[in-house]
Amino acid sequence: MENTINEVVILDKWLKSLAMQTHGALSLLDDAALLNISADEELVITTDMSQEGIHFLPTMRGGLVASKVLAVNLSDLAAMGAKPLCYQLALGLTEAQGANWMDSFAVSLAEMQRSFNIGLNGGDTIKKCAALTIAITAFGTVPKGTALLRTGAKAGDDLYVSGTIGDGGLGLAFLQRKILEIDQVHSQFLERRYWYPTPRIELGIALRGVANSCMDISDGLMIDCRKLCAASVVAAEIDYNLIPLSNAAAWVRENMPTLFEDCISSGDDYELLFSAPTEKADLVVQIAAQTNTRITKIGSIKAGDGSVNLIQNNQLISLSNEGFVHY
Amino acid sequence: MENTINEVVILDKWLKSLAMQTHGALSLLDDAALLNISADEELVITTDMSQEGIHFLPTMRGGLVASKVLAVNLSDLAAMGAKPLCYQLALGLTEAQGANWMDSFAVSLAEMQRSFNIGLNGGDTIKKCAALTIAITAFGTVPKGTALLRTGAKAGDDLYVSGTIGDGGLGLAFLQRKILEIDQVHSQFLERRYWYPTPRIELGIALRGVANSCMDISDGLMIDCRKLCAASVVAAEIDYNLIPLSNAAAWVRENMPTLFEDCISSGDDYELLFSAPTEKADLVVQIAAQTNTRITKIGSIKAGDGSVNLIQNNQLISLSNEGFVHY
Repeated sequence: MENTINEVVILDKWLKSLAMQTHGALSLLDDAALLNISADEELVITTDMSQEGIHFLPTMRGGLVASKVLAVNLSDLAAMGAKPLCYQLALGLTEAQGANWMDSFAVSLAEMQRSFNIGLNGGDTIKKCAALTIAITAFGTVPKGTALLRTGAKAGDDLYVSGTIGDGGLGLAFLQRKILEIDQVHSQFLERRYWYPTPRIELGIALRGVANSCMDISDGLMIDCRKLCAASVVAAEIDYNLIPLSNAAAWVRENMPTLFEDCISSGDDYELLFSAPTEKADLVVQIAAQTNTRITKIGSIKAGDGSVNLIQNNQLISLSNEGFVHY
Repeated sequence: MENTINEVVILDKWLKSLAMQTHGALSLLDDAALLNISADEELVITTDMSQEGIHFLPTMRGGLVASKVLAVNLSDLAAMGAKPLCYQLALGLTEAQGANWMDSFAVSLAEMQRSFNIGLNGGDTIKKCAALTIAITAFGTVPKGTALLRTGAKAGDDLYVSGTIGDGGLGLAFLQRKILEIDQVHSQFLERRYWYPTPRIELGIALRGVANSCMDISDGLMIDCRKLCAASVVAAEIDYNLIPLSNAAAWVRENMPTLFEDCISSGDDYELLFSAPTEKADLVVQIAAQTNTRITKIGSIKAGDGSVNLIQNNQLISLSNEGFVHY
């Protein structure tokens, strides 16, 4: 029975009690933790660990690994409405990463640092690892009390997503050669969306005081929406026809409907999923314009206990794959 | 030539430039980074990554792994004079860690949390890793401007260490069956010193405003002293006969002199190495009494360029092994 433990069990059975008395740990329910360290600001802290073979392909260049792992962390800061500040890098290298790989890795990190106005603050390096492993702890700030949490969704809220959904999962499917007969413009778009997720930093900051709840979609729209609803003790209804798709994803839906259904909620989107009171709908439209971000209302929050219903033409439907379940 | 890169090269060639504009990164020279976030305090941040097969034996129980990896991080906080606050845990599990292992791991973390009055603040868990990997980022606080740095040593300073030196390395040698005919009292002591390093938190805090420079000895007395001297652009002279030994280590020196010399500076001590002006020598004695910590003057800081001379009976000597060089 040693192998029946999974991430949820590990969190519930062993880790949550260790975080019980840490106020800013938010019961380990959220995208990031808070640290209350000054009169007017809170530090937002998030950690993500990635390993070759699990989170990225062993053949990835250093630059692709760097931008993806840092973007994943920045996306967690975006989900909390934080302004990025700096990061700690724990880099576990294998024999396979040499000077060329490190060049590519460092150049890409430097570009990300410039784009997001952040710096490397510290870390650790080990070599001779069994598999390339990277753990990043990223830091951001929010004015005290304004962090966007998963716990604030209220029945009646509108439910929104940024950008388009499914591209990351479809990009991975393309890389795994599950999509073959696709136009190159589409495949390059999907591949790019997989390698280079867009942390929605500006949007997260603009949503402070507007969104009641927020998280980033990393494991898949459906499974992540359930997490948000469970944390807020509400339910949600998502209209399948409203889920925003890129042209490339729409092409896959037309031409490979089964694969599309497998991938639409398979994760790697790194878009924001958030809820806001209906009276703030105009404000959300303004924020979309102001941050130059596509924002789509895909459903609403209901009273309930964490369930998420997917409806299409007034009928309840379900997807063949509802998200990336950690092992 | 892909495999000629080592930790020093990685730091100098790729990582330092990424940290150049991050003020609190301290040029990646120190045990931890600083984050300037309130008017009167700084946050001290340290990251350590450990992997099975490199930093601990694959057969280690969860509790031993937990206390060792957290202690290593807390030792870095101690080296900066910081009061521990909380930590982020990135836990990469393999198929080998089941419920019993996790029980032991979590119980040990809970004990450490109580001992040091800290809490788990967040993190990440992945499974199906190629090797058990743990990255901890630990946080502490210091009043602004009081962090103990590696860069402050001045010619004329006395050079001190806490506790006794070499026990951790000898404990590992015992576990590796390089020491066989040893009294059980000694072997248990050495083993315990290897598994359960003592983060010198109280001492680090007491040394604020007293020590000119400080670091913790993780890679070995000689090699770490060279790092401190290089960071401060000074030299040091250490008197071999003054290096404080436990009874167990003294027994090994008597009975296995070659092995002793191999291990005395092989790392895993997690004692503090610090320098202080001679006029504060009485204060250091008081601090030793007040924190109930053995503190020994082992030498002094000279003008110089990073070199460390080991002398015995007025003669320059050298050790067969001067420290743990990362790959």
